[in-house]
Amino acid sequence: MNPTDFPGDAPMFENIVRPSVPALDARLGTPEFVLDHGFVRLIDYMGDEGAIVQAARVSYGKGTKGVNSDRGLLRYLMRHWHTTPFEMCEIKLHVKLPIFVARQWIRHRTANVNEYSARYSILRAEFHLPEPGDLAPQSRTNRQGRDGSYGEDEATVIRHKMTTSYERAAATYFDLIDEDGDDLARETAREVLPLSTYTEWYWKVDLHNLLHFLRLRADPHAQKEIRAYAAVLCKLVEAWLPTVWESFVDYRLEAHTFSRQEMDALRTYMREVREFAADMGGPTLCLDGVTDRERVAFHEALGEY
Amino acid sequence: MNPTDFPGDAPMFENIVRPSVPALDARLGTPEFVLDHGFVRLIDYMGDEGAIVQAARVSYGKGTKGVNSDRGLLRYLMRHWHTTPFEMCEIKLHVKLPIFVARQWIRHRTANVNEYSARYSILRAEFHLPEPGDLAPQSRTNRQGRDGSYGEDEATVIRHKMTTSYERAAATYFDLIDEDGDDLARETAREVLPLSTYTEWYWKVDLHNLLHFLRLRADPHAQKEIRAYAAVLCKLVEAWLPTVWESFVDYRLEAHTFSRQEMDALRTYMREVREFAADMGGPTLCLDGVTDRERVAFHEALGEY
Amino acid sequence: MNPTDFPGDAPMFENIVRPSVPALDARLGTPEFVLDHGFVRLIDYMGDEGAIVQAARVSYGKGTKGVNSDRGLLRYLMRHWHTTPFEMCEIKLHVKLPIFVARQWIRHRTANVNEYSARYSILRAEFHLPEPGDLAPQSRTNRQGRDGSYGEDEATVIRHKMTTSYERAAATYFDLIDEDGDDLARETAREVLPLSTYTEWYWKVDLHNLLHFLRLRADPHAQKEIRAYAAVLCKLVEAWLPTVWESFVDYRLEAHTFSRQEMDALRTYMREVREFAADMGGPTLCLDGVTDRERVAFHEALGEY
Amino acid sequence: MNPTDFPGDAPMFENIVRPSVPALDARLGTPEFVLDHGFVRLIDYMGDEGAIVQAARVSYGKGTKGVNSDRGLLRYLMRHWHTTPFEMCEIKLHVKLPIFVARQWIRHRTANVNEYSARYSILRAEFHLPEPGDLAPQSRTNRQGRDGSYGEDEATVIRHKMTTSYERAAATYFDLIDEDGDDLARETAREVLPLSTYTEWYWKVDLHNLLHFLRLRADPHAQKEIRAYAAVLCKLVEAWLPTVWESFVDYRLEAHTFSRQEMDALRTYMREVREFAADMGGPTLCLDGVTDRERVAFHEALGEY
Repeated sequence: MNPTDFPGDAPMFENIVRPSVPALDARLGTPEFVLDHGFVRLIDYMGDEGAIVQAARVSYGKGTKGVNSDRGLLRYLMRHWHTTPFEMCEIKLHVKLPIFVARQWIRHRTANVNEYSARYSILRAEFHLPEPGDLAPQSRTNRQGRDGSYGEDEATVIRHKMTTSYERAAATYFDLIDEDGDDLARETAREVLPLSTYTEWYWKVDLHNLLHFLRLRADPHAQKEIRAYAAVLCKLVEAWLPTVWESFVDYRLEAHTFSRQEMDALRTYMREVREFAADMGGPTLCLDGVTDRERVAFHEALGEY
Repeated sequence: MNPTDFPGDAPMFENIVRPSVPALDARLGTPEFVLDHGFVRLIDYMGDEGAIVQAARVSYGKGTKGVNSDRGLLRYLMRHWHTTPFEMCEIKLHVKLPIFVARQWIRHRTANVNEYSARYSILRAEFHLPEPGDLAPQSRTNRQGRDGSYGEDEATVIRHKMTTSYERAAATYFDLIDEDGDDLARETAREVLPLSTYTEWYWKVDLHNLLHFLRLRADPHAQKEIRAYAAVLCKLVEAWLPTVWESFVDYRLEAHTFSRQEMDALRTYMREVREFAADMGGPTLCLDGVTDRERVAFHEALGEY
Repeated sequence: MNPTDFPGDAPMFENIVRPSVPALDARLGTPEFVLDHGFVRLIDYMGDEGAIVQAARVSYGKGTKGVNSDRGLLRYLMRHWHTTPFEMCEIKLHVKLPIFVARQWIRHRTANVNEYSARYSILRAEFHLPEPGDLAPQSRTNRQGRDGSYGEDEATVIRHKMTTSYERAAATYFDLIDEDGDDLARETAREVLPLSTYTEWYWKVDLHNLLHFLRLRADPHAQKEIRAYAAVLCKLVEAWLPTVWESFVDYRLEAHTFSRQEMDALRTYMREVREFAADMGGPTLCLDGVTDRERVAFHEALGEY
Repeated sequence: MNPTDFPGDAPMFENIVRPSVPALDARLGTPEFVLDHGFVRLIDYMGDEGAIVQAARVSYGKGTKGVNSDRGLLRYLMRHWHTTPFEMCEIKLHVKLPIFVARQWIRHRTANVNEYSARYSILRAEFHLPEPGDLAPQSRTNRQGRDGSYGEDEATVIRHKMTTSYERAAATYFDLIDEDGDDLARETAREVLPLSTYTEWYWKVDLHNLLHFLRLRADPHAQKEIRAYAAVLCKLVEAWLPTVWESFVDYRLEAHTFSRQEMDALRTYMREVREFAADMGGPTLCLDGVTDRERVAFHEALGEY
């Protein structure tokens, strides 16, 4: 017995070309603007959906197959929380963002970053000022967030206070570093600049970690300003890898996890109501548009065999 | 306005002692045996449940509170997929395991490892031989696994074939490295040893990554042999951090995630059946033993407001 | 042939206690103050020098030996750039630090962090103000740094400008969040606060990554303010693991790396000058206080055999 | 004062193309053979030397410059142990390698891997058999390695023993999994296969971590078999990023680090011999072919000012 479908076989010896995605190539270099002075610029990327399939298939010794089965595999990988095949794609962005957003962003450790240095260079007087509609009072129900809105006049007053504060800080900064004045070291003078000051960086990340970033930062609990960046990244992923995006929406963003207690309550209710409805001619639970395997798993999860 | 509940306040200036967990101290050093020659030995640990709470509370500037609210916070952190506070605990183990298990284990990258070196040292003639009850034919429905069982005679034959294979490999190995014989370099001679050969390592990991390991390796889809190790680690976590373990079971191991399509089907059915049952005096869905907040979130998820 | 020095043997079956280091236990909890409002507080640690030796020795199947040979092994590991045994120790700190320092610190990705959240909580009006002696003009030779010093009057003026800037920002912040005033969400109001604002976090890191942090942040090229924190961490490591610290100084901090071109120049010169000095009765190169192995390696590196 | 060289300026708005390196494009897909059955195949890559320069320059707000200054910057980054700009390049390889080599390779954690699964799939009967010239007795001076060589007859005998061992193991494996025979689960049957069995994986890594891999695995202390793979990777890096490779050789592979004690001995000797040679008209130390800055730093390191 000598298996013939081993990956070491024939396809090894052909020259190949780097996979590319026209929808991304068209976006390379041009900024997508975010907030008042920010942007996201696609600089480079590696891999396409075929690259994910290729890596997943090395596991069982087969190459890429038809589009249908690739789509099935991609959805399968997402559904079953596979991670390593998604790490085979990589993306590099140039991002301009306020420092308080950068501080949330950098907490994602599995990524590569080069940031503008305010030790070497002079920071530009650009600060994030929220739009009137983005201003809101401190939430009372959720300690970590905003809730409600302001009237036009109130918003104007608040924006004026913030602008004044930024202008004063900028004036102090430029006064301190002025070569004909104090000529203070840049690394010290920047201490007076506000957290709204814009910075820039190159950020490179693999797809698995990018999706994890998006789960947290495109979530309604994330701060509105970082969500504005996450929204741009979501569009990029959708253009780059449409089937991955679709399955990410289906199995992550719009999926829901029930706890042990919730599953128990649900199964009890389903059993009772199913019997009741069966007796009385009531509605039945029916799941369409999925694979047979998913349908079976769904009913099993709810205690129906 | 000058807040007085800032963490920089009073409690800073006291001398403290390292948190310890008596249930773990009693296990330090003594092996928990796994498979035929393997073991897991607890070598050291850092932190207890208070350490998780402490780190989580730095976020909102408060110290530890009473046991009840600590328990609530721990469950809240697990339910909402917080990760960084769980990284504040660390555990170090001495593990003896077959190489084919070690190869699955090492795929978890966020951990620290020092392994026995077969370049320096001579490997002992210890090989994993499955128990008769652990032998099973290749599964037909799940390409990655075993299914069914063997009769006593068949199992004896298979074990005999495996034992013979191991003994021959060991004989060749010891023959090759014999200083009065070939005296072959150990790093070369080990090439003949089977994947069942036992190795050892020290493995250190933080709690968040340990729980992730357990989600994957205590799962029924994991290979039976690594699950035997995962089962020992589960018991360790339970002894170390009982509330974390309980919430890990409730919100991970025995939780269930429904996809977007499944949630749509479920919500449609719930709406219909609820109306139907209400009209006809049928059963109602009711979730007990959870916080009010969880109960509200549960009904909301199912489309009831 | 059946080796008897295998680590799986006897010592496995004893109960052990967690290693502790009295010099660290005495420091647990009490802050070491840094800059004007900052501190470093030791919260917990795992492992001692024996833990490093233990992990290193699993490689060749032996337990800990006498103090002398442990010391030799620790120096050997450091000299030969071994990393994994040093990952077996872990330390956890509570740190209060200005945000511009926190932004440099967080670039070290292999660590665990929980930070005070300015979304949840109100930031206290504490800002870093450099001491007069820490103020210096922008360096002309090194674009990234400060150079020279100010007269007393100049320093007073600069500090006054900075203080005024901080006070205005703080006044705006507290005005914006005042519940009887604008009641602006904290996550928005903090945008006006300066980069000098103090924050806090719990930071947990393994020894290998801590030493890497210290190589970069205790270096004269690091910004003076983060070096002040690094200096405290250096003292902690020295108290915790004196032999590791000594070898870190010898083989990293006060070591020097010569490039290929420099080694070529050095070897050429050494050959010529050695011959010259030998002929003329000049000085000889002699290295004391190291192992024979190091002495041989030293002369070999310089082209003497 | 309003700086005009800010990276946010003009060049942002142009469409760009992905950087490519013709020398690598020519190699895409075709295997470079290693050992008796192994290979390394380039599958994809991201970035060129311009990408490193681009990321480094964001730090001080400038774009790419001429070739000369790019070269100077790349060498500067390598000399001063900068790491993050090198993380901006990424490479993906398909590698076929013996399991004992794979076990050394996988210890490099900062990389992405998808491996052939012996749970899903049948392993092919391909085993690593060392060439006669690669067989050597256990080293007596270095416990971790081989030393010396065998006569032709001895080598033949050893290879025969290894081959016999492999053939028996393979026969047992195929007997166990035979669907008409034992039909044993693949995940169990593979336990009898030797560590010399070939496996395959896709491996993706950033340039910084690849260079770290090469420092350790192209080193004479690494096992000869993994060095064979490292040699192929070295050639790939050289073709991809010639200036990076050159500076990696100059500042890492052929550089030398002297300890504190060695530097003290060297400085003492240099001072004495310099005075002696100056008096007597002896040779002088002279470093050519480097920048002025490097020359000054070189003499300073040796205690000459």
